[in-house]
Amino acid sequence: MTRYGYLGPEGTFTQMALHAWQPAQSREQVAFGSVDAALHALREREIDAAVVPIENSVEGGVSATLDALASGDPLIVTGEILVPITFVIAAREGVTLTDVRAVGSHSHAWAQVRGWAQQKIPDARYVPTLSTASAAADLAGGDTPFDAAVCAPVAAANHGLTVLADDIGDMASAVTRFVVVSRPEWLPRPTGFDKTTVVLYQRSDRAGGLLELLEQLAARGINMTRLESRPTKESMGSYCFSIDLEGHVQDARVGEALMSLHRVCAQVRFLGSYPAANGQAVSVDPLTSDPAFAEAADWLASIRNPGR
Amino acid sequence: MTRYGYLGPEGTFTQMALHAWQPAQSREQVAFGSVDAALHALREREIDAAVVPIENSVEGGVSATLDALASGDPLIVTGEILVPITFVIAAREGVTLTDVRAVGSHSHAWAQVRGWAQQKIPDARYVPTLSTASAAADLAGGDTPFDAAVCAPVAAANHGLTVLADDIGDMASAVTRFVVVSRPEWLPRPTGFDKTTVVLYQRSDRAGGLLELLEQLAARGINMTRLESRPTKESMGSYCFSIDLEGHVQDARVGEALMSLHRVCAQVRFLGSYPAANGQAVSVDPLTSDPAFAEAADWLASIRNPGR
Amino acid sequence: MTRYGYLGPEGTFTQMALHAWQPAQSREQVAFGSVDAALHALREREIDAAVVPIENSVEGGVSATLDALASGDPLIVTGEILVPITFVIAAREGVTLTDVRAVGSHSHAWAQVRGWAQQKIPDARYVPTLSTASAAADLAGGDTPFDAAVCAPVAAANHGLTVLADDIGDMASAVTRFVVVSRPEWLPRPTGFDKTTVVLYQRSDRAGGLLELLEQLAARGINMTRLESRPTKESMGSYCFSIDLEGHVQDARVGEALMSLHRVCAQVRFLGSYPAANGQAVSVDPLTSDPAFAEAADWLASIRNPGR
Amino acid sequence: MTRYGYLGPEGTFTQMALHAWQPAQSREQVAFGSVDAALHALREREIDAAVVPIENSVEGGVSATLDALASGDPLIVTGEILVPITFVIAAREGVTLTDVRAVGSHSHAWAQVRGWAQQKIPDARYVPTLSTASAAADLAGGDTPFDAAVCAPVAAANHGLTVLADDIGDMASAVTRFVVVSRPEWLPRPTGFDKTTVVLYQRSDRAGGLLELLEQLAARGINMTRLESRPTKESMGSYCFSIDLEGHVQDARVGEALMSLHRVCAQVRFLGSYPAANGQAVSVDPLTSDPAFAEAADWLASIRNPGR
Repeated sequence: MTRYGYLGPEGTFTQMALHAWQPAQSREQVAFGSVDAALHALREREIDAAVVPIENSVEGGVSATLDALASGDPLIVTGEILVPITFVIAAREGVTLTDVRAVGSHSHAWAQVRGWAQQKIPDARYVPTLSTASAAADLAGGDTPFDAAVCAPVAAANHGLTVLADDIGDMASAVTRFVVVSRPEWLPRPTGFDKTTVVLYQRSDRAGGLLELLEQLAARGINMTRLESRPTKESMGSYCFSIDLEGHVQDARVGEALMSLHRVCAQVRFLGSYPAANGQAVSVDPLTSDPAFAEAADWLASIRNPGR
Repeated sequence: MTRYGYLGPEGTFTQMALHAWQPAQSREQVAFGSVDAALHALREREIDAAVVPIENSVEGGVSATLDALASGDPLIVTGEILVPITFVIAAREGVTLTDVRAVGSHSHAWAQVRGWAQQKIPDARYVPTLSTASAAADLAGGDTPFDAAVCAPVAAANHGLTVLADDIGDMASAVTRFVVVSRPEWLPRPTGFDKTTVVLYQRSDRAGGLLELLEQLAARGINMTRLESRPTKESMGSYCFSIDLEGHVQDARVGEALMSLHRVCAQVRFLGSYPAANGQAVSVDPLTSDPAFAEAADWLASIRNPGR
Repeated sequence: MTRYGYLGPEGTFTQMALHAWQPAQSREQVAFGSVDAALHALREREIDAAVVPIENSVEGGVSATLDALASGDPLIVTGEILVPITFVIAAREGVTLTDVRAVGSHSHAWAQVRGWAQQKIPDARYVPTLSTASAAADLAGGDTPFDAAVCAPVAAANHGLTVLADDIGDMASAVTRFVVVSRPEWLPRPTGFDKTTVVLYQRSDRAGGLLELLEQLAARGINMTRLESRPTKESMGSYCFSIDLEGHVQDARVGEALMSLHRVCAQVRFLGSYPAANGQAVSVDPLTSDPAFAEAADWLASIRNPGR
Repeated sequence: MTRYGYLGPEGTFTQMALHAWQPAQSREQVAFGSVDAALHALREREIDAAVVPIENSVEGGVSATLDALASGDPLIVTGEILVPITFVIAAREGVTLTDVRAVGSHSHAWAQVRGWAQQKIPDARYVPTLSTASAAADLAGGDTPFDAAVCAPVAAANHGLTVLADDIGDMASAVTRFVVVSRPEWLPRPTGFDKTTVVLYQRSDRAGGLLELLEQLAARGINMTRLESRPTKESMGSYCFSIDLEGHVQDARVGEALMSLHRVCAQVRFLGSYPAANGQAVSVDPLTSDPAFAEAADWLASIRNPGR
């Protein structure tokens, strides 16, 4: 039975993602206190896979996950899950909205309900917590410096809290993208609606910069669906780029593009090819399809070996 | 006397940046609890300028600042300050490192000392706080769920805490970049070592994507020193790009490039031209210098008006 | 009354182009023995304009014209004329096709009927002449080393020759493009279906090559309809490029593109903006239209002068 | 013994090229009256190779050769020869420069001595001939409409003509490039100083145009040393591009570039890889060398087959 790690505790949006990915009866699940801890356990073979958040439609990339995947022993993404994000504000029984003096939540969650809070509870103080679920758990547990928690509905329910207001996110359609991470022992098969994730480190002796890298993709007709720059941590102004491409590493055009990036970059870190959660077929220019590449290879062989 | 707002409380790295920017006797200073609050006060004319963090060499872009500048009434950056980041772990008198059960700090700071902590105090729990300085203040003030704080040396000193270990950052040369933000009522003069910051929103009906935008810069010989993608918050996968360019908006090549971006983008938000903190002269290809642009304009006039 | 020079003698396709350009009663016409001679007379103000061939749909660019425009005192193209090319083979009365031992014609004309000749008069020898019309004139005049001429129908008629076969061109739809050349004392007005012709000389110290020049056009959304490389005559492998662009030098996008080329090239020689003979409106991306440029200039002014 | 065809008659610059290519004792030679005739004989296996002019440093590309290679049964270039071009004006014994009323020569040669002629024999008429050598031969043979010939020194000597003036070319360093053409039954081996020649036909349904094709080369770090546009002969404004690249088709970067062009073009016609006459080693960016391509292929295999 597959052992999945996830960013806990119970009641996080990450756990909801894991539930959406695979029904509970066919797996084991282990909560971790941080993305780093979950991926460390995966690298140490204590678990078989990990589910962690990578990007939120309002707050952007999740630095902890991007950085943990970009360094250390190789890991690859083998799946992705989109989870609509709905926040509630919850409190212990008897507390009403007007009683609320301080609100506990994760800083990312707080950033997404700030508009609501400014309007409805302008005088409430914000108290940062490790996760939305731990805010709910701590509140249920007792002595906390806050008297309400912003969390997922399921976390409020798990801990017997009263929901004071629901759907309080400032952006109605907020979504978080989670990834299933595995050790690089296998690759998901191409499905026709795949994504490939890589991290590109530039050569310091190369003038072209990001433009040169994007041209390598464009020359093979490949769309980029996400680009996130992350500091390499070496010095101010030194970045690497975390990129999602349309297509699978087994596709000829993706393979050629990755080889070209491997040549011109200081390092290309391959983070997996996996089915896109939206299930939308990748639109491939017929001139960069696998058959077009195969036909061109045949033609090249014929001109390289004219005597045959 | 200029009134500066900054991300407080007293003892934050932001306050250190403000000190480095202007000596205390020639200004007033007002601490704010969040970047949003400081920029709100600036927009409301309660203060004349605000100093806020925008980027850390280890943790990357500061989302709160990037997003607060990218929306709302226009503000511009009029200066930047680089502050080397040094962390200490501090506690109340009598507490030693082996006593530490829980550590309070801002999550960004914690991320930068995690390696040290895993080695030296592996069993200590992390407790998030609003800022590194508030961790120190709270600790000094009394009843806290943590018995040590990770903060700037000055914060420990301010609050009479004992430093248990200093320079505990995992990256020796960590630096944070702060910006001085003003209302768009004036522009710093070109100095020859300027940066220009813009936020680019792409047209949804345009295939070219980021590559097309970078080509507009390359066509005018302009280097980009920072690119940060931020969600537009409208839907998953919809980004804008926060970009730093070398050069001043008064430079001919920068002006032409910004006009071209204005034409091909859904929106270009100008966030200022200001002297780079490193004081390094921008290297300008003679073919894209102001005189080269002026000469080309003369030539065009001569062929457009052949009779003269 | 305007004095037009043309590549003579009487009966050339060039004269047909001149007739198509302007009715005989409203102008004078002067035949010249070469393109060089006609353009020399124009530079010397002996004539007001010259009509010369620049490009044939089968034989390609007319080097003599391209080179004569690219050097010497500036001249500009003020109009273009497309003339369908039809060849006949003609002889003195009494001569039949089977009698033909040698055929006189201009080498470009001979190149265009070679297929017909190989099939119908395979044993006939080719004798080069200065022009198709002079082949006809010489033949009518008497003692020639050839007994048939390949020329325009009008030349055969002018000289009382018998047409042995007509429409003998190997390409049914052959067309020659002629240009009206003037001294650079005025510019044709923009019509919405204009072309601009320039000659670009590259800097020897510049790596980008032709690609860099084409990118300057693409960055302003400008289509190129003709590119001809010509040796600079200085050394083997040193070329300049003769280029036709869609649009008029008065168009904002064309003006900006020409300025950019002027900056990055060793020399840009402007050879005129003039209505395209096909009368087809240039398709302009709204993002590179004159209003879009004007709006962007207003925006730039507003951010450069924030106080106003 | 190899049978070489060449553009005759005896005494042409082409014959000089053939002499420079291979000593007379080790081959047979056959003169042809036109490039077409020589290449036709090669295709019909009547000869083993043909030497024909392809480009002159003053007059540009030789259309007849470019077009004859671009259509018909495939042929490839297997070598190139550079011949410095020196013209003399020669006449029958007893004729002096002041006697000259008419000058016979090939039109390309006449174009290269026009400056000299205008100065020294301004009243002399030009009479076109099939080649410079035939002008000399005809003059020696007797009854001609011209009394002097512009030709190679060797042609004047061959036919016992008197040289009236030598080195009369307007460009002192004029050079003509000749190619050795073979049937595509073998390929010259890579030497490190190779060129590859191709003809590119664009897709009519493709917006990118020439820029897109050049980007495919740039993406693989390949320099282009010659670009000639030629009409496809189908309609005015429809071109193909004859291109010389640095490198051999066996080079990994050239192979990949040709495959990419094959995919995006309507047709790529391969015209051979052969040692450059100048013997200068091609400068290859280490990032696009064969070892760099091989290493990238290994890397791709490793990420495509993670289990191994």
